[in-house]
Amino acid sequence: MGVIRVGVLGFGGLGQAAAMVLHPKQEMQLVAVADRGGWAYRADGLPLHELLSAVKERGTVAALPEWGHTDSDGIAQVMTQAVDGFFLALPNLPNTFMARVAQQFIRQGWQGVLVDAIKRTSAVEQLLLLHPALQQTGITYLTGCGATPGLLTAAAVLASQSFAEVLTVKITFGVGIASWEQYRSTIREDIGHLPDYTLEQARAMSDAEVEQLLARTGGLLHLENMEHADDILLERLGICSRDQVTVGGVVDTRNPKKPLSTNVQVTGRTFEGRTATHTFTLGDETSMAANVCGPAFGYLKAGVALQRRGSYGLFTSAEVMPGFVR
Amino acid sequence: MGVIRVGVLGFGGLGQAAAMVLHPKQEMQLVAVADRGGWAYRADGLPLHELLSAVKERGTVAALPEWGHTDSDGIAQVMTQAVDGFFLALPNLPNTFMARVAQQFIRQGWQGVLVDAIKRTSAVEQLLLLHPALQQTGITYLTGCGATPGLLTAAAVLASQSFAEVLTVKITFGVGIASWEQYRSTIREDIGHLPDYTLEQARAMSDAEVEQLLARTGGLLHLENMEHADDILLERLGICSRDQVTVGGVVDTRNPKKPLSTNVQVTGRTFEGRTATHTFTLGDETSMAANVCGPAFGYLKAGVALQRRGSYGLFTSAEVMPGFVR
Repeated sequence: MGVIRVGVLGFGGLGQAAAMVLHPKQEMQLVAVADRGGWAYRADGLPLHELLSAVKERGTVAALPEWGHTDSDGIAQVMTQAVDGFFLALPNLPNTFMARVAQQFIRQGWQGVLVDAIKRTSAVEQLLLLHPALQQTGITYLTGCGATPGLLTAAAVLASQSFAEVLTVKITFGVGIASWEQYRSTIREDIGHLPDYTLEQARAMSDAEVEQLLARTGGLLHLENMEHADDILLERLGICSRDQVTVGGVVDTRNPKKPLSTNVQVTGRTFEGRTATHTFTLGDETSMAANVCGPAFGYLKAGVALQRRGSYGLFTSAEVMPGFVR
Repeated sequence: MGVIRVGVLGFGGLGQAAAMVLHPKQEMQLVAVADRGGWAYRADGLPLHELLSAVKERGTVAALPEWGHTDSDGIAQVMTQAVDGFFLALPNLPNTFMARVAQQFIRQGWQGVLVDAIKRTSAVEQLLLLHPALQQTGITYLTGCGATPGLLTAAAVLASQSFAEVLTVKITFGVGIASWEQYRSTIREDIGHLPDYTLEQARAMSDAEVEQLLARTGGLLHLENMEHADDILLERLGICSRDQVTVGGVVDTRNPKKPLSTNVQVTGRTFEGRTATHTFTLGDETSMAANVCGPAFGYLKAGVALQRRGSYGLFTSAEVMPGFVR
């Protein structure tokens, strides 16, 4: 396998972290990026520091000297470049966005690997409908490849192996970020999960309104029974029904230290009739960026192997073992 | 995927547990077994209780009324029956045994899935050499598919995803069994891992000698720096070098309660330069049988999917996501 040419769509906090994760890799190279302001492409790899500076100072990857372009249809533009796989680090809102982007790739007749770190069950349901079209086009699409769904969903699949019957899968995450302003889209989506808010309301909130909400909660967001696609990914594989899967957590928007250790607990009954719980716990020192972008590129590597074997269509993080990207 | 017709080779403690794990499954059916005394086959599924009784009372599956046969070449016999995949629940001793059995399948021109729960690095190294021959024959062979290597190796692959660099992988297992006599081969292999013993010495020990050793240690076996194939499986994928992987544990041969919780700890450095440890811990109430046989059949299911897509050759538990067998 030669060096995998990678594109990143969306260049907010997640996209920028993805570029940093890729930077030291020998097996992958970031060659293409696109955001609302435009796109950039360089066959030999985009220069990381210049790219991050351009985004910091001018708000868009289009501002990258020499390789940036200000076309408004950045995704359509990078699609025509030589890229093996894209990480869709796009906002998870609206719910239909990822499926629309996938359809754009299908219409173009693009062939390669797409990976998302999508969160919501309903968003994954829309992607599942695209399986036949993706397969026919020659796209290997891996969905739900972040931390949860993603790393923790896959850990739940492993944990289920010891059991004749899985009783519950409980995902509890702790997220600590120094400032919510680095993750404006993600935090709005989290707010959309709170009991008193809809996704649309959260999305329409001004920065000042988000600040006011966080001031009332001391910067903490307590999330319970979230609509997370872990449920449908596990249900599809026959591990349990989606209502046996729960996702909740605590987000601290003012402290990079996690308020609790992110973990998944799988409780089941063994063939001898014993009830037990396996637990997979993430080290507190790992950031959301590390736990989302690392798996995303591990799945992208696995996706490239599938693609080269002629396996196309929609796959999930629960059915493919991610590779390790050196 | 119709019902998968499964064979189990070797019918000691592990093989018998495998039959019990399979019994309630809808997606798999135990149709063939072989041990030193002979073999048994029934296309509609072997009757579990009669099979276990035959082995308990007469010491061999050949004693199963109606479907048992006393031929000494049981493996050669079941190979000619309609079986989709075999779980090689054979003794891990001698070290070359699993590769010899694989070669027997190759010589026969058999096509299907083989899964082992092999432990030793050197045994896996011998199997790796068979990749071209397995591929040419049309055999999909998954190696190291028990608990460790197997479940915990795969968990280490997932855990590695968050890290730019993996520093150490530390597997620590606790095993509790009511009586060592149910696992004569396994316990002798464990003794072979003790500082003062070689595998050959352990294998040659009489039951009385094993009893004497266990009397001296209070029934406990403390194992350190074991030669376990987790190291080579992770090294092959570029996750770390084999000397960064350590396997050790405590076996209590007189108490089904585990002396400590079996776990794998993966310590690495993230792209931001932080050091952290992810941990996957098995519930104490899960038995060795559940943690070995469950994954073995999960990998067998994944192997059948690979086989049907035309993917042949040698695979490991670290590169394939096991399926969940209903």
